[in-house]
Amino acid sequence: MIIQTKSDISEAQKDKLIGEINRVGYKITEVKTQKGTYLVGIGTADFDIRRFGHFEGIEDIHIVSDDYKLVSKKWKVDPTAIDLGDGVFIKDGDMAIMAGPCSIESEEQIRVVIDHLKATGIKIMRGGVFKPRSSPYAFRGLGIDGLKLWYELAREAGIKIVTEVMQVSQIEEMYDYVDIYQVGARNTQNFNLLDELGRVDKAVMIKRGISGTIEELLQSAEYVFSGGNEKLVLCERGIRTYERASRNTLDLNAVPILKSKSHLPVVVDPSHGIGIREFVPQMALSAVMSGADGIIYETHQVPEKAYSDGQQTLNFAQSALLADQIRQTFALRKTFPLL
Amino acid sequence: MIIQTKSDISEAQKDKLIGEINRVGYKITEVKTQKGTYLVGIGTADFDIRRFGHFEGIEDIHIVSDDYKLVSKKWKVDPTAIDLGDGVFIKDGDMAIMAGPCSIESEEQIRVVIDHLKATGIKIMRGGVFKPRSSPYAFRGLGIDGLKLWYELAREAGIKIVTEVMQVSQIEEMYDYVDIYQVGARNTQNFNLLDELGRVDKAVMIKRGISGTIEELLQSAEYVFSGGNEKLVLCERGIRTYERASRNTLDLNAVPILKSKSHLPVVVDPSHGIGIREFVPQMALSAVMSGADGIIYETHQVPEKAYSDGQQTLNFAQSALLADQIRQTFALRKTFPLL
Amino acid sequence: MIIQTKSDISEAQKDKLIGEINRVGYKITEVKTQKGTYLVGIGTADFDIRRFGHFEGIEDIHIVSDDYKLVSKKWKVDPTAIDLGDGVFIKDGDMAIMAGPCSIESEEQIRVVIDHLKATGIKIMRGGVFKPRSSPYAFRGLGIDGLKLWYELAREAGIKIVTEVMQVSQIEEMYDYVDIYQVGARNTQNFNLLDELGRVDKAVMIKRGISGTIEELLQSAEYVFSGGNEKLVLCERGIRTYERASRNTLDLNAVPILKSKSHLPVVVDPSHGIGIREFVPQMALSAVMSGADGIIYETHQVPEKAYSDGQQTLNFAQSALLADQIRQTFALRKTFPLL
Amino acid sequence: MIIQTKSDISEAQKDKLIGEINRVGYKITEVKTQKGTYLVGIGTADFDIRRFGHFEGIEDIHIVSDDYKLVSKKWKVDPTAIDLGDGVFIKDGDMAIMAGPCSIESEEQIRVVIDHLKATGIKIMRGGVFKPRSSPYAFRGLGIDGLKLWYELAREAGIKIVTEVMQVSQIEEMYDYVDIYQVGARNTQNFNLLDELGRVDKAVMIKRGISGTIEELLQSAEYVFSGGNEKLVLCERGIRTYERASRNTLDLNAVPILKSKSHLPVVVDPSHGIGIREFVPQMALSAVMSGADGIIYETHQVPEKAYSDGQQTLNFAQSALLADQIRQTFALRKTFPLL
Repeated sequence: MIIQTKSDISEAQKDKLIGEINRVGYKITEVKTQKGTYLVGIGTADFDIRRFGHFEGIEDIHIVSDDYKLVSKKWKVDPTAIDLGDGVFIKDGDMAIMAGPCSIESEEQIRVVIDHLKATGIKIMRGGVFKPRSSPYAFRGLGIDGLKLWYELAREAGIKIVTEVMQVSQIEEMYDYVDIYQVGARNTQNFNLLDELGRVDKAVMIKRGISGTIEELLQSAEYVFSGGNEKLVLCERGIRTYERASRNTLDLNAVPILKSKSHLPVVVDPSHGIGIREFVPQMALSAVMSGADGIIYETHQVPEKAYSDGQQTLNFAQSALLADQIRQTFALRKTFPLL
Repeated sequence: MIIQTKSDISEAQKDKLIGEINRVGYKITEVKTQKGTYLVGIGTADFDIRRFGHFEGIEDIHIVSDDYKLVSKKWKVDPTAIDLGDGVFIKDGDMAIMAGPCSIESEEQIRVVIDHLKATGIKIMRGGVFKPRSSPYAFRGLGIDGLKLWYELAREAGIKIVTEVMQVSQIEEMYDYVDIYQVGARNTQNFNLLDELGRVDKAVMIKRGISGTIEELLQSAEYVFSGGNEKLVLCERGIRTYERASRNTLDLNAVPILKSKSHLPVVVDPSHGIGIREFVPQMALSAVMSGADGIIYETHQVPEKAYSDGQQTLNFAQSALLADQIRQTFALRKTFPLL
Repeated sequence: MIIQTKSDISEAQKDKLIGEINRVGYKITEVKTQKGTYLVGIGTADFDIRRFGHFEGIEDIHIVSDDYKLVSKKWKVDPTAIDLGDGVFIKDGDMAIMAGPCSIESEEQIRVVIDHLKATGIKIMRGGVFKPRSSPYAFRGLGIDGLKLWYELAREAGIKIVTEVMQVSQIEEMYDYVDIYQVGARNTQNFNLLDELGRVDKAVMIKRGISGTIEELLQSAEYVFSGGNEKLVLCERGIRTYERASRNTLDLNAVPILKSKSHLPVVVDPSHGIGIREFVPQMALSAVMSGADGIIYETHQVPEKAYSDGQQTLNFAQSALLADQIRQTFALRKTFPLL
Repeated sequence: MIIQTKSDISEAQKDKLIGEINRVGYKITEVKTQKGTYLVGIGTADFDIRRFGHFEGIEDIHIVSDDYKLVSKKWKVDPTAIDLGDGVFIKDGDMAIMAGPCSIESEEQIRVVIDHLKATGIKIMRGGVFKPRSSPYAFRGLGIDGLKLWYELAREAGIKIVTEVMQVSQIEEMYDYVDIYQVGARNTQNFNLLDELGRVDKAVMIKRGISGTIEELLQSAEYVFSGGNEKLVLCERGIRTYERASRNTLDLNAVPILKSKSHLPVVVDPSHGIGIREFVPQMALSAVMSGADGIIYETHQVPEKAYSDGQQTLNFAQSALLADQIRQTFALRKTFPLL
């Protein structure tokens, strides 16, 4: 159950309401976000929702049978739009393109990528400065200094930044330099990190876990939302299966399913989804047709020399061609009625 | 190693050649298809291919390092086109649409489906008369009499038939009434069935196994090809993973990978691939963008009343809309250069 | 619903009974086995079972909510014992050891394996004469002649034979030479094969599918049972997962689960379950502790020279040691009360 | 490559050595643990190891081809023993039993569990005070105050504590109250957490990831070890597969494989591994036979009333019986020679 309260609800009204909800056997979590206040009721008893109709201070009340509540489409039918400022959005009915290298490597690299993005009309740049690596001996990224440098150059160029946050202590130090915090596939169920990201007012993009279910991805989003942050983007990036001909198995089924279950925008990462450069474009275009609201892919001036993930990274010519094909495919998709 | 022999090679020439191949440590399987004769050599030794250059009766010779040989693109670069007659093809550069019910149920049903296909310009009808069912107590199909009836009505209408063959003994009884034998996902590694399908001169569509790898699908095709039948179509239909929000996990990564490894056409079954009617169209269109040469989906006049798979079956209005969108998406794809 | 009828039920009594069952909305399949006659009712309606109490000719009546019926423990609580003759059993409360090579290779090989089994007190020999192979170019076994030779030598030595049947046409030709027909992991859902094995009166051991569920294994057993053959053994042999450090993932969880759901005996194949010779003994002993009624493993005089599966095959010294440890472990297990 | 240096190596000697290693193309990470100093060299070039023979200050030098180095058995053949004090060990050749509730709930609960453990001779108590939960609305544990209370009671009773640490900031606050930090299955690749656990001098037990590979588990252990902490225990707890008849698929294959690849002790968690109370004992005993050095399972005075995981938790009678059976099974295993 989700109860949206009026902005002018009094404490007395709220206490009376919560008391009554407790009486029907529901436990209440009060959630305050930048957009409003919600009372999320968890319980299993059946009751007549009209019982609450006469209470003062209620804006709206919804029964939500899903295990996740605030990210469910069952109470919020309108899609959530993520406004990154300067006219840049990630939202239903739009096609956000995000591109950039796996790792931020140098000032020179940042500059050429930004030039490529500007030439191609791409507004959001991806890149890693804190890199989760299976081996402790591998390159772990340029860190916060790399991010500051990147931010400076990106702001000049009017480019937004999406980059991975790996631990709670990084949230604050990164805050001034990111537009979207990315939660990586190994941290999808790092609940402390999700809790803390609920306290910031910047967008958060949550990648599906290495072998995470669709349900778990929505539960992870619920953590951030119930922590107070509604600016959420979901990202399908391939799952682990028995098949080894590709790096991961890109699960495009997840796109229409997530879009039907949640009001949050859904983007797809075809680079990790297949892991083979040559086939990234086909998967990107497939993702567009599956109903994605955005595509995030890897590009680098010389993929063969990239510090990481070179085998799945497009060069700039391929990237420019793909961005154009994504836009054409999306334009066609918009003309298609759904029955 | 694959050696294509000239049509006029003498037995003596062939014996001499095979003797020499054996000498370098390779075992030879002689494969005769309707199109030609091949000597497939299996072994691991390194040798200089020029050693065989002076032998008479050789058309061409190829080293194929894959475990599958005759279905590999390493020796046959040109895509294989499946000609079903009357101008109906399944081939690279084309978009074959195959639609119909899960199960053939009655004459009335066959008639209305055929009328729908004709109205929509679809040339190939799918449907099951022998149904593999998990439970022995479930409906197992109308059998050979259903197929005969179906064939009669389809031929009148100029419609081709693709339907599942479940066992060796059915191959011959079905022969006069099918255009494409379908090998189902539970029979992908039924090697006896594959062997026997190598002996017929009709097209065979092999579905990927319930949890089959891409490599295994190609090996299964190799069985049929090495048995003598080159008319092969590969079909991605979703794989079994831990995710249960969809019936299967449609693995569109498999499409460009199969197309790059093999010269055979690749079609996609979005109905089984996601298993949820509402989302079949998105997955079908995604499949087109992934590079598929055809789409096979389920449609029925009243899906809710279908004997099986109703939950993933489109009604005729949805089917007509989808067929049109498939064609538009394919038309766009054809304008896209690949870098 | 399963109704066991009395042996002297008249046709009129049976018709009356079936009519009444149909009236409550259940469809009846009549199953005759060597042991009795059952009416299996499939339906979803609720009804009062006492309604049938007064019908004549009924031995017993059970509600079985599982999708499988006749193999369920819900109607037959007593475990089923498979009697292979000469005092050899596969049954609950006993420990059947089955060992032998992956492939039957030669008379010499058969003789030395049999000598080893006799010396070790093992009564059942495994071995393949029809081999399912991923590649059409691999060794496919000695075939029926190999089986006849094997049978002759085994009978002399008082050893029972378990070997794989791959297709319907082999059932009859193998009949005189096998004690247990094995259905391989690629044929677990070869429903025609299962149907036909329901018509023979010899034991059938069904291996779990490559990625088959526990439920599907029971459904496959239901096929054979409802075809008329109650002599069934279930076999866990490892499933396909993302892990590649072992050939398969041996799922010992399946053993107590299968034993709790079904009255059929359960055996475990640690050789395929882990696929690494060095660790087969540990997995065999684990299987004993999981509650298995038997162990089937691969042994060969010189595993390194075996035609197939050598990497997971024990030599005779290892086999003798393992057989002894299996027996000791089973002896300990029998002393353990379950709470 | 791992170079163990002598305790009295001079800085000059070390610099000279590192310079030479760099010259053959290897990058050096210096690792100092409580036990010694190691230079871990990462590179791919071939070189003659004798080249380093004459350098001063070297204790020993090993080539380790695995991706993990310090946890590999290739350089440290002797098994690592974890000494928890007061004669309590987790080590090869021994059988550590760890038991307790899923969640620490109250003083009363702690007391009765401790009484049970003492009566049963179990020396290590498990329990969660920080609980990772899929849903933000679920019970998240008593936190640090619960841990302090638990510690006080456990110390009095001479019982050691193993409990989950979820984030970096908890390491220090928990330090005085734990004997073993547990890294949960959702944090196996939380690299920051692993890094920081490398800096403490208490034992760390790493659970295999929800769908983690054996290789990844070893890499995660490498993080902690290379951070400076050698006191590591690996834990198999079941993996995610397509099978849903059990909560997870307990992968006992992992036990002998881990033991052969690493010198670290390996324990098994049958409670999460199968998730069904009734079958936990069979899986625990199977784990003993697979070669595990310890078993960790859940027990509670009234499992039906446990705050979490009640369905897989044993009552005290079952726990006492199981502990006894574990010991008997282990005693038998110790008598078994391995061939």
